[in-house]
Amino acid sequence: MSAHIIDRTPEAYGYPLLIKQLLHSSMATAPAQEIVYGIDNQRRHTYADLNVRIQRLGNMLRELGLQPGNTVAVMDWDSHRYLECFFAVPMLGCVLQTVNVRLSPEQIAYTLNHAQADVLLVNSDFLPVLKQIRGELTTLTRCVLIGDDGTPAPRGPGFAGEYEELLAQASPVCEFRDFDENARATTFYTTGTTGLPKGVYFSHRQLVLHTLAVTAGLALAPQQGRLHRDDVYMPLTPMFHVHAWGLPYVATMAGLKQVYPGRYVPDTILRLIDTEKVTFSHCVPTILHMVLSAPAAKDVDLSNWKMIIGGSAMTSALAQTARERGIDVFTGYGMSETCPILSLAHVPTAELGTEQDVATRVKTGRPLPLVALRTVDADMNDCPHDGKSTGEVVVRAPWLTQGYLHNPEASQGLWEGGWLHTQDIGNIDARGYLQVTDRIKDVIKTGGEWVSSLEIEEIIARHPAVAEIAVIGVKDAKWGERPVALVVLKAGHEGISADDIRKLVLAAADDGVISKYGVPDRIEFVKELARTSVGKLNKRVMREQYPS
Amino acid sequence: MSAHIIDRTPEAYGYPLLIKQLLHSSMATAPAQEIVYGIDNQRRHTYADLNVRIQRLGNMLRELGLQPGNTVAVMDWDSHRYLECFFAVPMLGCVLQTVNVRLSPEQIAYTLNHAQADVLLVNSDFLPVLKQIRGELTTLTRCVLIGDDGTPAPRGPGFAGEYEELLAQASPVCEFRDFDENARATTFYTTGTTGLPKGVYFSHRQLVLHTLAVTAGLALAPQQGRLHRDDVYMPLTPMFHVHAWGLPYVATMAGLKQVYPGRYVPDTILRLIDTEKVTFSHCVPTILHMVLSAPAAKDVDLSNWKMIIGGSAMTSALAQTARERGIDVFTGYGMSETCPILSLAHVPTAELGTEQDVATRVKTGRPLPLVALRTVDADMNDCPHDGKSTGEVVVRAPWLTQGYLHNPEASQGLWEGGWLHTQDIGNIDARGYLQVTDRIKDVIKTGGEWVSSLEIEEIIARHPAVAEIAVIGVKDAKWGERPVALVVLKAGHEGISADDIRKLVLAAADDGVISKYGVPDRIEFVKELARTSVGKLNKRVMREQYPS
Repeated sequence: MSAHIIDRTPEAYGYPLLIKQLLHSSMATAPAQEIVYGIDNQRRHTYADLNVRIQRLGNMLRELGLQPGNTVAVMDWDSHRYLECFFAVPMLGCVLQTVNVRLSPEQIAYTLNHAQADVLLVNSDFLPVLKQIRGELTTLTRCVLIGDDGTPAPRGPGFAGEYEELLAQASPVCEFRDFDENARATTFYTTGTTGLPKGVYFSHRQLVLHTLAVTAGLALAPQQGRLHRDDVYMPLTPMFHVHAWGLPYVATMAGLKQVYPGRYVPDTILRLIDTEKVTFSHCVPTILHMVLSAPAAKDVDLSNWKMIIGGSAMTSALAQTARERGIDVFTGYGMSETCPILSLAHVPTAELGTEQDVATRVKTGRPLPLVALRTVDADMNDCPHDGKSTGEVVVRAPWLTQGYLHNPEASQGLWEGGWLHTQDIGNIDARGYLQVTDRIKDVIKTGGEWVSSLEIEEIIARHPAVAEIAVIGVKDAKWGERPVALVVLKAGHEGISADDIRKLVLAAADDGVISKYGVPDRIEFVKELARTSVGKLNKRVMREQYPS
Repeated sequence: MSAHIIDRTPEAYGYPLLIKQLLHSSMATAPAQEIVYGIDNQRRHTYADLNVRIQRLGNMLRELGLQPGNTVAVMDWDSHRYLECFFAVPMLGCVLQTVNVRLSPEQIAYTLNHAQADVLLVNSDFLPVLKQIRGELTTLTRCVLIGDDGTPAPRGPGFAGEYEELLAQASPVCEFRDFDENARATTFYTTGTTGLPKGVYFSHRQLVLHTLAVTAGLALAPQQGRLHRDDVYMPLTPMFHVHAWGLPYVATMAGLKQVYPGRYVPDTILRLIDTEKVTFSHCVPTILHMVLSAPAAKDVDLSNWKMIIGGSAMTSALAQTARERGIDVFTGYGMSETCPILSLAHVPTAELGTEQDVATRVKTGRPLPLVALRTVDADMNDCPHDGKSTGEVVVRAPWLTQGYLHNPEASQGLWEGGWLHTQDIGNIDARGYLQVTDRIKDVIKTGGEWVSSLEIEEIIARHPAVAEIAVIGVKDAKWGERPVALVVLKAGHEGISADDIRKLVLAAADDGVISKYGVPDRIEFVKELARTSVGKLNKRVMREQYPS
């Protein structure tokens, strides 16, 4: 016998989980709520306007010949227009490709071709890039200009016109039909230190479920970091980057006031926080640092600003600085492959203001509803939840990419054993908080243990003579791998010896902070560390420099 | 061309929306949280215990021979055991039948047979009922006794034993396999004033989506009526009635402390609010009235108690009384067919404490995320959102019953035109709040307009001589229908004339409160009004008494 599938009355509406369904409640309850585009004269639309503009955009794209299954690429800064594309493009059954404008022109061309983009909506700021790669684009047929500065659309057969002009010409009533909730809604590319960018993709169903679960996870917080209907939302992770962490969908479903800041300029961001009373944002540590360091920051009240920090680890020092300015920072965790949010580091009420407060905010977080998150050893056995035992973080959730676009080999690796492998290493404590300690490719497997390169680096970085530090694993016949520390000394400290530094790590091992296997045998003094084009440490190159 | 369905890597986990998935986040983050059974010595379990007890219950039910597709019926008061059944029964792929213990023994027998119940878990309080109907039950094979008072399980081949004893014997590790998310998880019966009880049914997918959307709808409230992780939940709508409005699933997913009060006894309820610090409940107006009227109520602080009121309309007077005791009451709307929640009447922050405050709490509410809710005329055209124009409330949501069990004719009527017909009449105001004004079967269609019988009744009820009032529509050749008022006068007011009463209604019509068509031509003085077995006005019988 098997479970009964429910009987469906022929006329009953089965309710596919489509992105258009996120609009029902906010259009019914918040039609006059505002969406602000914060550059120049601050353009303001209402949700009722958004509804009409989505329908106009739907018709405009249909008039360009787009059909379900086609791909519409967007190159824009964060704007109300991008929000309109977040809805109208997938609502047509098309795929929205959010192009990472920080990639090199060659990489952008590669991703547009690989995603088979048919139409490109392009901000005039990126026309020079487009001009450079136009000849290489094999699938693109038409472009639409997005302009804030009155740039006219370039003449020629490739350009259909300017966004606002075309919108004004399009009919304000568009029927968005139902289709399979497993239809692809979005795609974008993730870049590592090696190889070509890899495409991930998300269905309507996945985006709707991510929206619901993130809303529940954020809104259920008792006090710290909670989201509610009186919040004013402004993204500070770009909309091309994992749909700005999916928060524009959350904000729209909840009917929040939304503020889009265009290109990230500290003075603009600070002005908008001040004048539009922004209360909820999210960003990477670098952007938070940039905003806090801007001269104008001292004149703006930041004490009503809640902020999810992700992308890379927030240090306790940055969290402390933000807290001193009154910003309610806390960590969110995820990656391109996971739509992205998996966990949030809300502080329990009893811990607020205690010594544990900041320590909890910089944890990687506790899983959202529906997220099954494990730390496992190489045989997929669970590590104990003791806050110490580390293993790879593997997850299941209803919104994880089901593979890499047209890349079965990498897809198989991602999903080996039926769990998505994050390639992050971490531990879970008794309260359920995950702490990611390293990337699996940077972790050092030695003497049967996994040693975090980041933890050793943190210890060595405390030495007053050390300017920069990287720890890598090099092959070792006896131990598998052994840690090697590459140290850049501060000017004037050239007399320091390897033993001085090793002592610091030995002391930490004696205190039980790290495993004894983590004490590097070799400490190399170098002039500089290999970095990637965006300034991250490039351990792949370092490992090539020190093969054994 | 059609939309691209996403490619699935063979090993990728597709993540069916199954009830078991609601447990992931709370088991990871709140294993020590409490679940209290509030009778006698207040039994306490943790979520970790719940997890083990669900697994034991799964094994116990398998050992009784149950297989996916079988039906397990439960007759119990609100308890931790019922919560365990909410999870373990559907997690096995079985169907949970929540039996309405307030039905007559004949109706209970009918519903058990109609649902094809295989096993019954029965509280010792209902053994007399079971004894009475046992011979009529055509599909039931085994029973399990649930006892709070040490009653031994009756001997004989029908009883497998007592719940706690069988649980203790069962293995604490149970594998709950995946299956289709559209598998039926629950079923129960709804009774009207006519005909046999009708079965509704919900799939795993529907219950998961209801849980997520209700959580989002409740938790996003800025201040009034919001749910969060520090809340303490106690149901006061029975668990057999539309899964206690689905809130036990919400509370469990969110990891809240939960309190189950057994049979509803005012002193027990008040004691639990006091000692367990209950902060969130839901009930029908009658239960709220019962609790407020209990002598013990004056000694208990109710000012931290949030309360959704549904089932029938909350009067402003009851809302005011509750507010004076500090209870945060507000309306929730739905019905058995809708899983149930469709809308909630949260008060916007700007209205809190103003004259509008109580008026908003007694509105029917604003739609939850994903709910498409319309008021329509007979041709399915939308009524204007002006707070006056009334039409039938029709809805779409991902959690509506897809029909009545084994009843295609009624199912077709429920879903005519692809929208679920609530049979409620109401209006929507410019802020998006629905106000249900009548049941469609009780509304009076006269002169091309729909007149609410409830509104005319409210006006006539203000006359000091009127003890009871019912207004019905009777057939009329010229107008379609005409309203007739049936009035029971208070003792000593027999001299009152029909004209005295009609004057009151005419004045209301002159003021524009109701349509002129709503003024009854006929006002009949009667000794008593026809009522149903549960004391509701029985307008069907009245219409038979006054056919024209």
